[in-house]
Amino acid sequence: MKRLVCVLLFLSALVGVSGQPVSSGDVPFIGAQVFIEPGQRAEQVDGWFRTMADQGMTVCRIRMFESYMHTGERWDFGLFDRAFDAAAKYGVKVYGTFFPRTDRTDIGGWKFPNDRQQLESFGCYVDAVVSHFKDHPALKGWVLINEPGIGELPQTPYVAAARAAWEECNPQPDLSPKGYPVLVTLDDCAFLKDLNSEFLEWISRRIRRQDTQHDIHVNTHAIFSNCAQYDFPRWRSFLTSLGGSAHAAWHFGYFDREDYALAMLANSEMIRSGSGSLPWLMTELQGGNNTYSGMAALCPTPAEIAQWLWVVLGTEGKGAIFWMLNPRHSGLEAGEWAMLDFQDRPTARLEAAGGVARAIAAHADLLAGLKEVPSGVDVLYFRESLWAEQHFAVAEDRYAGRREGAVMKSALSCFRALTECGLNVGLKEASEYDFTRDDYSGCSLVLSGQFCIPASFRQSLEHFVSCGGTLFIEGLSLYFDEYVQLALGAESDYADLLGASLSEYVLRQDLFRVETGGLALPCHLWQGTFEASDEPMHVHAYGRGKVVWLPSAVALGAWQSGDYGPLSSLLLEELARDRSAVSFATHCPGVLMRTLSHGQDRVLVCMNKSGDPVQLRVKGLDAMKRSTEIYRFGEGSFRGGELTLGPESVLVIHVGR
Amino acid sequence: MKRLVCVLLFLSALVGVSGQPVSSGDVPFIGAQVFIEPGQRAEQVDGWFRTMADQGMTVCRIRMFESYMHTGERWDFGLFDRAFDAAAKYGVKVYGTFFPRTDRTDIGGWKFPNDRQQLESFGCYVDAVVSHFKDHPALKGWVLINEPGIGELPQTPYVAAARAAWEECNPQPDLSPKGYPVLVTLDDCAFLKDLNSEFLEWISRRIRRQDTQHDIHVNTHAIFSNCAQYDFPRWRSFLTSLGGSAHAAWHFGYFDREDYALAMLANSEMIRSGSGSLPWLMTELQGGNNTYSGMAALCPTPAEIAQWLWVVLGTEGKGAIFWMLNPRHSGLEAGEWAMLDFQDRPTARLEAAGGVARAIAAHADLLAGLKEVPSGVDVLYFRESLWAEQHFAVAEDRYAGRREGAVMKSALSCFRALTECGLNVGLKEASEYDFTRDDYSGCSLVLSGQFCIPASFRQSLEHFVSCGGTLFIEGLSLYFDEYVQLALGAESDYADLLGASLSEYVLRQDLFRVETGGLALPCHLWQGTFEASDEPMHVHAYGRGKVVWLPSAVALGAWQSGDYGPLSSLLLEELARDRSAVSFATHCPGVLMRTLSHGQDRVLVCMNKSGDPVQLRVKGLDAMKRSTEIYRFGEGSFRGGELTLGPESVLVIHVGR
Amino acid sequence: MKRLVCVLLFLSALVGVSGQPVSSGDVPFIGAQVFIEPGQRAEQVDGWFRTMADQGMTVCRIRMFESYMHTGERWDFGLFDRAFDAAAKYGVKVYGTFFPRTDRTDIGGWKFPNDRQQLESFGCYVDAVVSHFKDHPALKGWVLINEPGIGELPQTPYVAAARAAWEECNPQPDLSPKGYPVLVTLDDCAFLKDLNSEFLEWISRRIRRQDTQHDIHVNTHAIFSNCAQYDFPRWRSFLTSLGGSAHAAWHFGYFDREDYALAMLANSEMIRSGSGSLPWLMTELQGGNNTYSGMAALCPTPAEIAQWLWVVLGTEGKGAIFWMLNPRHSGLEAGEWAMLDFQDRPTARLEAAGGVARAIAAHADLLAGLKEVPSGVDVLYFRESLWAEQHFAVAEDRYAGRREGAVMKSALSCFRALTECGLNVGLKEASEYDFTRDDYSGCSLVLSGQFCIPASFRQSLEHFVSCGGTLFIEGLSLYFDEYVQLALGAESDYADLLGASLSEYVLRQDLFRVETGGLALPCHLWQGTFEASDEPMHVHAYGRGKVVWLPSAVALGAWQSGDYGPLSSLLLEELARDRSAVSFATHCPGVLMRTLSHGQDRVLVCMNKSGDPVQLRVKGLDAMKRSTEIYRFGEGSFRGGELTLGPESVLVIHVGR
Repeated sequence: MKRLVCVLLFLSALVGVSGQPVSSGDVPFIGAQVFIEPGQRAEQVDGWFRTMADQGMTVCRIRMFESYMHTGERWDFGLFDRAFDAAAKYGVKVYGTFFPRTDRTDIGGWKFPNDRQQLESFGCYVDAVVSHFKDHPALKGWVLINEPGIGELPQTPYVAAARAAWEECNPQPDLSPKGYPVLVTLDDCAFLKDLNSEFLEWISRRIRRQDTQHDIHVNTHAIFSNCAQYDFPRWRSFLTSLGGSAHAAWHFGYFDREDYALAMLANSEMIRSGSGSLPWLMTELQGGNNTYSGMAALCPTPAEIAQWLWVVLGTEGKGAIFWMLNPRHSGLEAGEWAMLDFQDRPTARLEAAGGVARAIAAHADLLAGLKEVPSGVDVLYFRESLWAEQHFAVAEDRYAGRREGAVMKSALSCFRALTECGLNVGLKEASEYDFTRDDYSGCSLVLSGQFCIPASFRQSLEHFVSCGGTLFIEGLSLYFDEYVQLALGAESDYADLLGASLSEYVLRQDLFRVETGGLALPCHLWQGTFEASDEPMHVHAYGRGKVVWLPSAVALGAWQSGDYGPLSSLLLEELARDRSAVSFATHCPGVLMRTLSHGQDRVLVCMNKSGDPVQLRVKGLDAMKRSTEIYRFGEGSFRGGELTLGPESVLVIHVGR
Repeated sequence: MKRLVCVLLFLSALVGVSGQPVSSGDVPFIGAQVFIEPGQRAEQVDGWFRTMADQGMTVCRIRMFESYMHTGERWDFGLFDRAFDAAAKYGVKVYGTFFPRTDRTDIGGWKFPNDRQQLESFGCYVDAVVSHFKDHPALKGWVLINEPGIGELPQTPYVAAARAAWEECNPQPDLSPKGYPVLVTLDDCAFLKDLNSEFLEWISRRIRRQDTQHDIHVNTHAIFSNCAQYDFPRWRSFLTSLGGSAHAAWHFGYFDREDYALAMLANSEMIRSGSGSLPWLMTELQGGNNTYSGMAALCPTPAEIAQWLWVVLGTEGKGAIFWMLNPRHSGLEAGEWAMLDFQDRPTARLEAAGGVARAIAAHADLLAGLKEVPSGVDVLYFRESLWAEQHFAVAEDRYAGRREGAVMKSALSCFRALTECGLNVGLKEASEYDFTRDDYSGCSLVLSGQFCIPASFRQSLEHFVSCGGTLFIEGLSLYFDEYVQLALGAESDYADLLGASLSEYVLRQDLFRVETGGLALPCHLWQGTFEASDEPMHVHAYGRGKVVWLPSAVALGAWQSGDYGPLSSLLLEELARDRSAVSFATHCPGVLMRTLSHGQDRVLVCMNKSGDPVQLRVKGLDAMKRSTEIYRFGEGSFRGGELTLGPESVLVIHVGR
Repeated sequence: MKRLVCVLLFLSALVGVSGQPVSSGDVPFIGAQVFIEPGQRAEQVDGWFRTMADQGMTVCRIRMFESYMHTGERWDFGLFDRAFDAAAKYGVKVYGTFFPRTDRTDIGGWKFPNDRQQLESFGCYVDAVVSHFKDHPALKGWVLINEPGIGELPQTPYVAAARAAWEECNPQPDLSPKGYPVLVTLDDCAFLKDLNSEFLEWISRRIRRQDTQHDIHVNTHAIFSNCAQYDFPRWRSFLTSLGGSAHAAWHFGYFDREDYALAMLANSEMIRSGSGSLPWLMTELQGGNNTYSGMAALCPTPAEIAQWLWVVLGTEGKGAIFWMLNPRHSGLEAGEWAMLDFQDRPTARLEAAGGVARAIAAHADLLAGLKEVPSGVDVLYFRESLWAEQHFAVAEDRYAGRREGAVMKSALSCFRALTECGLNVGLKEASEYDFTRDDYSGCSLVLSGQFCIPASFRQSLEHFVSCGGTLFIEGLSLYFDEYVQLALGAESDYADLLGASLSEYVLRQDLFRVETGGLALPCHLWQGTFEASDEPMHVHAYGRGKVVWLPSAVALGAWQSGDYGPLSSLLLEELARDRSAVSFATHCPGVLMRTLSHGQDRVLVCMNKSGDPVQLRVKGLDAMKRSTEIYRFGEGSFRGGELTLGPESVLVIHVGR
């Protein structure tokens, strides 16, 4: 047995899991939440960690329930000591998630304390847990709190006090700088963004009082709506890694099931962008079945497990942790979400994850430190647009474009249209983009449906274009500034940059066609017209770059119609990109790919969600003569630049000279 | 006139209506609510009772509005005296429903007093009414309160005090007996169940202070959801008969119109089971048109009137009372629900009811004391499953299986699949089933979709099977115990009984097929798999009986698809039943039958809701050579074991040797 | 420049706009809201008025924001002085809308003050504004408050005090005059109706303290539901003109887009009826695009602009004011609704309005003082029916007939069926109809779906019929009296008038057919049957007139099925009308027409919303030999009594001898 442990520890070292914070050069890991609660037997717990090790899983998360370690006045860590020891025995590292005492019916935990007293109590709990576990050999790091991000702020003393302080620093003007009355304010949203950051930073400082070594991590969730309340650049100052919960059943409500891999890809790119130079993990992935929990209930197939993992690995994720290994025994999620069956045996889902883990282990050198090859193309979203949408959207409106989600769907639609061309595309909150460079040749930015953009971004956009960048502006983008006041029209500050003036937006109908450059693009609701031209699109040279302005909602048109072909063609035609960018020869609906670099070599992560077998040509790899299969799920091959994929299949290829 | 009264009184005696409580041996009656309110003229009231007598109706209900008899400090029973006297004049017996003072917009009356004071005021009102009417010759009995059962408990002093007392007797543990944390509690539901019983018992005791003779009755309502808050076995101690309101427009929301007769049948079987050895009545049946009241508005057809009445009579109901004879004049239901038209003339609906009354009178001997012939097959539902569903169900979920109603629909689906085979099937809350017998040969229990079953039932089920019973377990049944904790899996206490271990449930999709024994059963959402077998169904001999376990949601599959054929075939194949059980030769969609015994003879109550003419063979009556038509609505005949029924028709046959 | 101003002032005089209140003999005007807010530049404001003048617009509305003229203690009218002066400069007259201080997020303004203090503050604001502007040459009149009418009354001190006072004058009885208990009361609605009137009258008196000359106007909104809370006959005592907001995107929710012109016509007829002998204007018409505001978002086409204007002009409207000329710069409606584009240039919509203005100017003599030629046919609605529906309607009912809107849709359906026959039809609240005449030969009243009618109207209806009128009663009309108690049946007071007695209503199904007089009318839900006849319709001679009673919901049947043909035929067949009434030879779906008189000549306003070209024969103009085209949008001609109209086209014809 001792020998087995040694081997496992050795293996875990190989795949880069150590007591140090996760780092960019690490071999990625696969792991799962081990759910610890009273009532479990020691052998059972031991068995769970053994099974993890069997399947090549080297990291787990454990929710550190205050309720189960702090009864009455006494601290009793026994339940969790046993789990940490078992983890150590099988070479599994642990992320401990702080989970302060809460009502027993509260499935996700509170996001903010009610008052000073609860805050202080939380601090003491953090102190107790950190001091007890910080030297445990199995400890990998801390997750600050489960899934920050909240629908509506509760009216508590804590929030009220924080708001009062915030308003002192952020007084609200009656008139905007241009002299117009400020009728709509986004302050509620701006405050929530700051409050999230403040509270997370507070926890992180509390940990660092005692533990200056281990990873400090937090997992976002419901990224497509919550992103507006996350300030990732600020978070980088107190985190050592960023992560996310990306549960199909809870978080992918904008998507149909066949598009969950795309959703996972978009989610991953958003986290990757948010993390900046920090490493990132997918902290929670759905591992098993729903009965009553979740919103779009499902049980992942083994193919989906493989797809999701490779999406994470293909976007530089340093690891992926399933929710969860073993099912809870009680409560809303009891018997759900698990990768073990009711007999604690591995399910086909766990075995699929194990297969990916084996592939990682077999190619550890290659997969450590892979980087996405930038294509130069990034889609931007603006949190102010999401805030304004939250304010304006009509809950049950007959038109998708007026319901909540249209802003993000616009960005996602362009992201999809480009991804289905095989391009690596970034998806970034505007503040995450680096506007400080001197040369943006081969770079493109896409602003799609971003109808509220702070005036301060104008200079950044001008700089970007004047230094050679291509700026694509779609739909209602640029309609409002951060005071939710008209930013277009006769006196628009954007006149120089855009080289055209918008006459008006006209709501035509649910779906119609906009024709430009030989393409008939499906369009949803709004068509914009120019002052001085009858063309629907205006191209303007500015400095060394150019602006392409199509003020009609063609991104939502593609989303609503499901027809991304014309939008893909248009973007491919108009957007500059890096000469090294790999892509498909044509738009391939439902095919996802990411290209990563390993020195001069490339690793291609490919999957087919189209429902049909596909065969397609990959461009930009002509110099690469050698190709090796790293991993395959289902049918697939790559020969002479031709990629063949069966339905649902995943193929990972190493190509080199 | 005096002579007429005598004849009527004689007739009413003949059909079993006397001043004594209703009894099992009585000839069933048909009646209607006579709605008494200020503004009515004496001749009108007299006319209503005369019309009732003309149509063979021998019982009425009267709502004893405190508001109309107790104005200021004074009691004035005049309005109701007049009605009772008219009832007596025409030989009609009266059930008086207590209806304490309430807001005038309150259409159904309150279910619990607000506080001690209102309780005491209610008591005084009961005292006044009982003392005034208890010796009236027309009095048949008391209805404790209109339709106990409530959606959400109000936060009143009465409820708060009752809850505090209840919690003292029912403390909530932190850990279940198995040591797991109790995260979800069903206490709110359990308390409501007890509170309903307590208050009803309180009223009943108050009546019995003065009147120890007359019937004490109460009418349930919305049985398919409210059943979870009714504790019928306890009620038997203070009632002398049980009843229900079964209004298509209010209570049959799970069903389409063509299935209302089936809904009535299920409702009747549930009341029959609940009443135990007490007699039961259908206290309210929809008699007329909806304009604005009701949820699924309709006006019953004469055929539906006949169907509903014979469903009641075919399940041992001792009577059926329509809501209502004459329409209210004011308020939400004004001009609605009535069996008289606006000229106080009988409608075709009333005449249809009169036709049934004539048939009863013509066959009084035969119909008195008829008993359903047990087939040995009962479908069980568990109130804990309904409680847990109420906790977990997702209001607007895309899947029916996750919305409220799935637990009951699962049971109803099996009930329907068996009923459409011509079998008499019981539908019982688990606590109503007699688990004390020594021999269950020829008996079967169906547990369908009952996903939360108290651990204490395990022994009962083991006893049942070991003594020769057949236990059919479907879908998510047995998932949880009463602490809403996993009851299946490696350590399940059911291992011996089931002879197999469940691996996991997997949500596949809305509708798919599960194949077993040559059948392809439609299945909804979840498929369960076994640890040690790839078969979807496991059959296990245990003691003298057997367990058939199909842990996939095929009952909801039949319900959602409307295709009950495969489920019927499977149940017929697997379930043991009494050798004397009458059935159809095959599954006949939409055809309902109940078989009753009159000594060695049989009475068959048959109806055809399939929409098409049907012809089918009835099995199990080979010894019966003689058949007489007791009643027929529409086309139909029974000859040589062949049953022929036109669409919507009802046929009642007496068969003997 | 001075010359231009003179010319404009002269022109404006020509088209009837002066400092006097609007009057019936005026030439109608076209105008727009000029939205004044801080931040605007003087040249811009000047330009807006210049553009108005260029397009022949002679009237504007300005919202007199207290917030922008009363900061701190100080009054500063500068922003508005500038606008009034610019208006004067270009010969544009101004309606100033009172808009007391409100939250800046409040887009529509408050409808009632919160308390005495806010009322008094409002009074001071009125004083200040009126005294400052009353002598300004541009002032045309005052709009009392923006869009009175409210969904739910707030529970404020002001409302509570008003309610207490109201209840003293309007005590609620326990029993109705007939002795039945009053269970449902419409007092909440009746109180709101009175409160609206009281508050408007209060404002009007406050204005008249200082300004006894200018127009006093108010604009209704959402007329199809709010009409129940407007008491137009009472308003006539303190208004000098009546108006309405008729925004397709906000107010026409009962209609599909192709029926918006019909909705505008019904709205106009309701305002015309409400105004009595006062002139009326359409105070707000949607001028531009929606992004996030509105409920059924759209941008009007130029054709719709022309249609809506001619509907107003064709129903005696003295003017129409668009919302709005220039877009707001901030808040929910920023950049929306405008007739100017973002460069302040006229859009095609504004040019379409300008085209109508030019036609008016070119035919000023003809168009001044035009009167609709009464056909003698009026559809009545009863506010009590709307109140009762508000009480009874089931929000999400499966049947349209039981949801809110059915009462008004019933009336609108008959209105449409008659209008599509080319008839001028009135649409009146019952209290607006003149029941004091001695002769109603050639007059017909339609009561459709009016299920709650005060008993006091019986005498009016009897007088009407006995003096020669034809009364058509449809569906549930007459079901209840104002105590929401049954008004039909054996003891109905309507027996003499109706000559028949209703047996009952029966809910059959969503859509079925009722056959009478060779017609098969689509019917929704309810069929009424008579006591003494199996015919669905009863015709009864009463005095010199007749009653036609079809107690089945055929109006809703036409609405739900979209098939108005049979209903049109029936109404044409049964209704008496004026011998001079112009009509089509047959029912022409989607074709709207109004006939106006200019002495012996006629002006026909025609439009085609059918989607197809139409050709049809106009009856009743045989004596007219001469026809001149006054205005045309799209294809169309009128020759020899044959009217030809292309899709969406508008044609206005002057016919004479």
